[in-house]
Amino acid sequence: MKQRFELDARLLRDCHVLGYLDECDVLLHRNAGAPWFILAPHTTQTEMIDLPIEQQQQLLKTINQLGGFVRNHFEIDKLNIAAIGNIVSQLHVHVVGRSQQDYCWPDVVWGRQCDEVYSAEQIEYIAQQLADELGLVRV
Amino acid sequence: MKQRFELDARLLRDCHVLGYLDECDVLLHRNAGAPWFILAPHTTQTEMIDLPIEQQQQLLKTINQLGGFVRNHFEIDKLNIAAIGNIVSQLHVHVVGRSQQDYCWPDVVWGRQCDEVYSAEQIEYIAQQLADELGLVRV
Repeated sequence: MKQRFELDARLLRDCHVLGYLDECDVLLHRNAGAPWFILAPHTTQTEMIDLPIEQQQQLLKTINQLGGFVRNHFEIDKLNIAAIGNIVSQLHVHVVGRSQQDYCWPDVVWGRQCDEVYSAEQIEYIAQQLADELGLVRV
Repeated sequence: MKQRFELDARLLRDCHVLGYLDECDVLLHRNAGAPWFILAPHTTQTEMIDLPIEQQQQLLKTINQLGGFVRNHFEIDKLNIAAIGNIVSQLHVHVVGRSQQDYCWPDVVWGRQCDEVYSAEQIEYIAQQLADELGLVRV
């Protein structure tokens, strides 16, 4: 049996785990002030540039798909796509839809708290749309 | 004669223009608190996901090269790679080397000022190393 990829405890605390897609776990940040998704590729590398090129290209494809999904499903003005990892070293890529009306525009979301949260129904809806449209395998 | 790619005024104000590499302008942020480079692909698209896939892959290759350069030439603990664009919509990708000793670790650099600047000699040295090692065309 394939061992389940183990997510960092901080990511688990901060996010809802929606499922996985093309060797990436797909997370939704609990902060609902902006549609904030996180892709965690199944790797022990901590830098994107250290992934084999094939895995980088797969990740790029998944970023494209998820970015398109965010733009289609939320009212956004800009995508913010970032691999930071100063606090959580496990490789993860933020895909955040930003709106000029959101809680911290035009600042970046990192380090900016927001009390808005998703309902269970909203999380279920988003996960199901990702499953239907992108083939997310739900967990 | 090929028209020179026109950089956004804010990028020109905030950065030293070092040259170009594989259809990207290469900039060095004036904030010397961290080795902070910016790639501005020669495109009018504002979202990375809207670039043709070939151009995305070229950009990825340039990010890999520049990220490796930053890691080789500076004492860093982490790379931060990000396409944000909330303030400057012209597509640009930040490639920032972060150290646990730098001015705002572990926070992100965006929105965090620092008075440290590069000397003309340091800028010249960095540009020349980029030219020698990665083939940067200097301007």
